[in-house]
Amino acid sequence: MTANPARSRRSGGRAARVAMRESVRDDTRQAVRAGLEGGTYNPLSDHDLRAIHDAALDILADVGIGDATDEVIEIATAQGCHLNAHGRLSFPRSLVEDLLTKAAREYVVYSRDPAHADVHVGGNKVNYCTSGEAVSILDYKSRSYRPSTLVDLYDTARVVDALPNIHQFGQTVVPTEIADLYEHDINVVYAVLAGTTKPVEHTFNTVESIPAAMEMYAMVAGSEQKFRERPFVSFGGCPIVSPLRFAQENLDVLVATSRLGLVNDIAIAPQSGATAPSFLAGALVQVVAEALSCLCVVNMVRPGCPMSFAAWPFAVDLRTGAFAGGSAEVAVSMAAIAQIGRFYDLPTTVAASMSDAKMPDAQMGYEKGITSVVAGLAGANRVLESAGMMASLMGCSFEALVIDNDMLGMAQRVVRGIEVSEETLSVDVIKATVLGEGHYLGAGDTLKSMETEYVYPETADRTSQQVWIAEGAKTIDERAHEVAGKLLADHAVNAIPADIDKAIRERFPIKLERSRMRVG
Amino acid sequence: MTANPARSRRSGGRAARVAMRESVRDDTRQAVRAGLEGGTYNPLSDHDLRAIHDAALDILADVGIGDATDEVIEIATAQGCHLNAHGRLSFPRSLVEDLLTKAAREYVVYSRDPAHADVHVGGNKVNYCTSGEAVSILDYKSRSYRPSTLVDLYDTARVVDALPNIHQFGQTVVPTEIADLYEHDINVVYAVLAGTTKPVEHTFNTVESIPAAMEMYAMVAGSEQKFRERPFVSFGGCPIVSPLRFAQENLDVLVATSRLGLVNDIAIAPQSGATAPSFLAGALVQVVAEALSCLCVVNMVRPGCPMSFAAWPFAVDLRTGAFAGGSAEVAVSMAAIAQIGRFYDLPTTVAASMSDAKMPDAQMGYEKGITSVVAGLAGANRVLESAGMMASLMGCSFEALVIDNDMLGMAQRVVRGIEVSEETLSVDVIKATVLGEGHYLGAGDTLKSMETEYVYPETADRTSQQVWIAEGAKTIDERAHEVAGKLLADHAVNAIPADIDKAIRERFPIKLERSRMRVG
Repeated sequence: MTANPARSRRSGGRAARVAMRESVRDDTRQAVRAGLEGGTYNPLSDHDLRAIHDAALDILADVGIGDATDEVIEIATAQGCHLNAHGRLSFPRSLVEDLLTKAAREYVVYSRDPAHADVHVGGNKVNYCTSGEAVSILDYKSRSYRPSTLVDLYDTARVVDALPNIHQFGQTVVPTEIADLYEHDINVVYAVLAGTTKPVEHTFNTVESIPAAMEMYAMVAGSEQKFRERPFVSFGGCPIVSPLRFAQENLDVLVATSRLGLVNDIAIAPQSGATAPSFLAGALVQVVAEALSCLCVVNMVRPGCPMSFAAWPFAVDLRTGAFAGGSAEVAVSMAAIAQIGRFYDLPTTVAASMSDAKMPDAQMGYEKGITSVVAGLAGANRVLESAGMMASLMGCSFEALVIDNDMLGMAQRVVRGIEVSEETLSVDVIKATVLGEGHYLGAGDTLKSMETEYVYPETADRTSQQVWIAEGAKTIDERAHEVAGKLLADHAVNAIPADIDKAIRERFPIKLERSRMRVG
Repeated sequence: MTANPARSRRSGGRAARVAMRESVRDDTRQAVRAGLEGGTYNPLSDHDLRAIHDAALDILADVGIGDATDEVIEIATAQGCHLNAHGRLSFPRSLVEDLLTKAAREYVVYSRDPAHADVHVGGNKVNYCTSGEAVSILDYKSRSYRPSTLVDLYDTARVVDALPNIHQFGQTVVPTEIADLYEHDINVVYAVLAGTTKPVEHTFNTVESIPAAMEMYAMVAGSEQKFRERPFVSFGGCPIVSPLRFAQENLDVLVATSRLGLVNDIAIAPQSGATAPSFLAGALVQVVAEALSCLCVVNMVRPGCPMSFAAWPFAVDLRTGAFAGGSAEVAVSMAAIAQIGRFYDLPTTVAASMSDAKMPDAQMGYEKGITSVVAGLAGANRVLESAGMMASLMGCSFEALVIDNDMLGMAQRVVRGIEVSEETLSVDVIKATVLGEGHYLGAGDTLKSMETEYVYPETADRTSQQVWIAEGAKTIDERAHEVAGKLLADHAVNAIPADIDKAIRERFPIKLERSRMRVG
């Protein structure tokens, strides 16, 4: 009489709960994890891919990239580029195609603790990561944003350390209170490494910070050799000012990190309708050209140096010019980039799960949910900006981090897809059940599959209306605020042993007080 | 120095706003609309599809469907079915394959006003529709649910009439105050037809209501002939009790509507782990068998009668047995069904955008966002339950309807994908811009593409943090509550002319008072 299944809901599942508590965790059989295979969603046809590629190479050869540094001009012209009549660095098609064959096909950003997974970047593997370098933090109770600080960076790292569906901690916020670029950079390195043992990412403001940072990585790893064997950091940066110009300071960083063979985890972020064409296909052409120019620079400096194909086609709201990070246009464009990266067989990073909402509300939920799952289904290797980011990337929220952990678990379960085998097809189980007990609750297969087939949210609510009301009729943001508060108070991370911490503090001007930390 | 594009945000866009106001609307060029092409996401391999099909046919032949009515047994055994040793109706493989060739490939549910699109069902076309028959309505201010009424059904229809990204109004709630089945059904028909001129859907509680309903459709259409030429109603119902039994009363309705050649828009809704196997692949096998058995019945009664392949693999939370409509497992299973329907070349309906949240919060947002976009990308022809449904299908919310309209606009824009052509690749525009003005704001292509490439939310917020605070720091649910209140107060729908309304009221026991309606 009715399509409403909730009305015929069965109680029960006690045996299942017992089985789940008693089951030994086997990470390779968990419903979701880092590195699930995506790529079942392909927004572009083969013809589209080829057309975008050809147009991007046309642009690189014909228009080229402006504002190259003398150093890059020297490196590039020695290998076949030339400065065109507009003083722009032109990349011949054959050179780009040659460098594409030399580029790294994959890389790994390592965890510093076996409790967390390494992040394997390449193929169709999908990993979700924070990042964003917001300048403010949501004060949930007062519905306002305050400038972010070094403590916020450390605290967001620590919260992410406790959230299993976020696979890498990238720099969520900047410490706005530190003006000196070197002190800023070195304190970012420390806060990020102290807050979590997960793989991390951050940016440098100045190339001068790199030697000191390398020293600190080596101290934390045990030696530079050990750090190089299992690098646990990737490096953000924006070497392009769209349309089609280099950003000189970031280009210096890119050359320096490439010389060192570090993981170049850049972001190239034109905005359709403002700094890129308003037709999404045209924006793809431009951002692919921009990304390939950086790929050429990196592979001219050090062939095969690990690097992300990190073309981030953003968009503005054309009515107002406002940045629209949580928009459909960004979602589908990022999915196209994942597919284009696969076409080139390059490791990809995209940006998704941004929101233009200011509070962790339904808008935040659907903007993040849609963009995250679309990026994962398209097979983006690293989905950056994917937790905590609000207010068109201007702010970060502890509550959003907690909610996004559940959301990303759901997205990952969708990405994982459906495993079809003789066992999972369940023909014998169906026959036995239909002719026998008549329902599947408590059946052997149900107990067996409950950890491998299903993901269970931690903060999201699946109770009945009656139970929900009895428990205070709370929204998920209210519950997430409580969860975040508890994590901030309790979650200790012993990421840097005391003796190494002491040595780091003696060597560098570390501003994060040990007393402010939770080190277990 | 930073990946944060919001910091370099440009103001402007005045020319764009002017252009948008002045542009003549051309529906075929709008960014989103009913019937966009999906199908770019395919969770199953060809081998998976074949394996599921084979297993389902095995189940239909070997186990069959229990509890067939005498009428259906007579029809079916005359065409090659037989009752097996367990008294269950067995469907031989060759019969199922033969009836699959006779089934309707597409159908249309018509709008009664050119201002709204018809819903074309078949191929890869994607339409989003309400439905759900919840028994309660959210009282937003008090955070509680009250029993739904006939007025709520009419009011939700009226609100949906004003929301462009919802393409069909299916029965959101049941009038819980009407106990008599015939009076209940006839008042549902009236309320649905009075509340909107969009294509509609509802269910019958009893087969006895059908003649009266047919009479009312004819009165509204002008004649029975006119109704049959452009049917504006599809008919829900659940002819299966999982696992693998017929629901006799609904089976009677299915036979009756098939005899009349009406659109059979059923739903078959087993729950993985409870009334279907816990392995998702096994649940697909069972639900495909169940759906094919109904397809066989319909096509034995009237070959080619319009009908949805409406296999809805739901899931429970195996920890508690609670229905988990907003889960990843349901999202990916519904996507698989869309692909299986395409494999059979049958019109599909799936259920998505359900939420287990009780308030229109971030959980609601991401559960609805993920499930909606995944269904659309998979090419489900009609995505039911896709607006307003909350609380594991137990409740409906006016606020959720308003929010979901924006969410569905976003999902549809993703489904639409990226159009690649010489024009959209924008090579000449890029060259001219880079060597000229240096940005694309206000460029000819930007003005031209702003309606065709971009979708603009109505209730979602893209302002700056400062503007948002100045405007009261509201969440989207607070704004949606205001929008819904305004629509309820103001949105008039003149769906049934006064003279016909008078005739209907003279003929049938209509309980919705004319004074309570907004008829413009």
